[in-house]
Amino acid sequence: MRYAVLGTGAVGRTIAAKLASLGHEVVIGTRDPETTLARTEPDGYGNPPFADWQAAHADIRLAAFADAAAGADAVVNTTAGAGSLPALEAAGTANLAGKVLIDIANPLDFSQGMPPSLNPVGTDSLGEQIQRAFPEVKVVKTLNTMNCEIMVDPSRVAGDHTVFVSGDDSGAKAAVTELLVSFGWPASSVIDLGSIETARGTEMLLPIWLRLWGSLGHADFNFHVAGARTGA
Amino acid sequence: MRYAVLGTGAVGRTIAAKLASLGHEVVIGTRDPETTLARTEPDGYGNPPFADWQAAHADIRLAAFADAAAGADAVVNTTAGAGSLPALEAAGTANLAGKVLIDIANPLDFSQGMPPSLNPVGTDSLGEQIQRAFPEVKVVKTLNTMNCEIMVDPSRVAGDHTVFVSGDDSGAKAAVTELLVSFGWPASSVIDLGSIETARGTEMLLPIWLRLWGSLGHADFNFHVAGARTGA
Repeated sequence: MRYAVLGTGAVGRTIAAKLASLGHEVVIGTRDPETTLARTEPDGYGNPPFADWQAAHADIRLAAFADAAAGADAVVNTTAGAGSLPALEAAGTANLAGKVLIDIANPLDFSQGMPPSLNPVGTDSLGEQIQRAFPEVKVVKTLNTMNCEIMVDPSRVAGDHTVFVSGDDSGAKAAVTELLVSFGWPASSVIDLGSIETARGTEMLLPIWLRLWGSLGHADFNFHVAGARTGA
Repeated sequence: MRYAVLGTGAVGRTIAAKLASLGHEVVIGTRDPETTLARTEPDGYGNPPFADWQAAHADIRLAAFADAAAGADAVVNTTAGAGSLPALEAAGTANLAGKVLIDIANPLDFSQGMPPSLNPVGTDSLGEQIQRAFPEVKVVKTLNTMNCEIMVDPSRVAGDHTVFVSGDDSGAKAAVTELLVSFGWPASSVIDLGSIETARGTEMLLPIWLRLWGSLGHADFNFHVAGARTGA
């Protein structure tokens, strides 16, 4: 499969590297490749400059959002939540139409102080906003409830733990579930919550995730729905 | 200990019965005991009339909110979230002052359709609203992230699963943790998230809880934080 991974941060790099290691053709999308490659300082989260990372991942090409999306069979959104809709607009409606869009972003809002809150929250979600803005795209929200290293290596966390999928298209959710299994997720760990509206619930896990990160002092944890199979 | 349990619904009944079974003196608080006892129909959730329930729990007295709170060492809020602040106003600032208030309520908002949303949400929580309205009360938010039968019998759910506590008073959180252990919770299952501000995170688990309830078709599940101890 040819994947476009939109976003050059830690999540994008981690997903892109995993996809490439599984034999997929991967292009990372960014607003302006020259600007991205010109950066020589670590980003705000302490990740090394993209050019350094790419030197170790020569099989992964960097391209503008539209170029990346145009050549892809499926798209992964790992941009910061506040920039997701602009990034997808830049990718282009026609370049996205009919494709599966795996949305890993969370609409974190840093304007109300730390830890960040969510915007939208409550009666809307970023997943729904994207689906409404791009009705011909098959949006599947998943993986947004954990640290990126766990996304591609669930064995980092001992015991059973859960990855949620939300989306309106059953076929797209089945394809994404297959991808998750290829990442190392047992099929029994994947919970299909229902339509893209259920992305509200998974995005609203972020506030407690952020507080657990603070309280536990590490990010190698994940939510598990205990008893999910009982009586099901 | 003498407990006042505010609220006559399924959560209040379940908590009250458990406390009484552990030898505590329990009074259930309601707005108007005569009205509550006069009901002969099941409530909106299908629970039998309170009078029927009380006939099987003769050791548990029903009283007006203020009467219940005045005679208690500690108070448990199990009222519907939208009615929690009015119920606590009726209980009376002086009757609550200095006491531990275990807040199990969630601010479910049924005005935006089903499933209910939350109000407040995002940058405030019901737990914080209660703490602000009653600054002399030691509010501990806990148990609000699961079905009431699991609250008092965690063995209903196989495997490890988690109960969160949030609150500004360490002594109150220690006392509540001891109570949780007496309910059957392993101390290792209790995660102290921090101040009452962290109640935002646990209240925001309700949206995914409600969708899991729909998706799984039963309520005998609970959240577990897998990997919580790793590296801690």
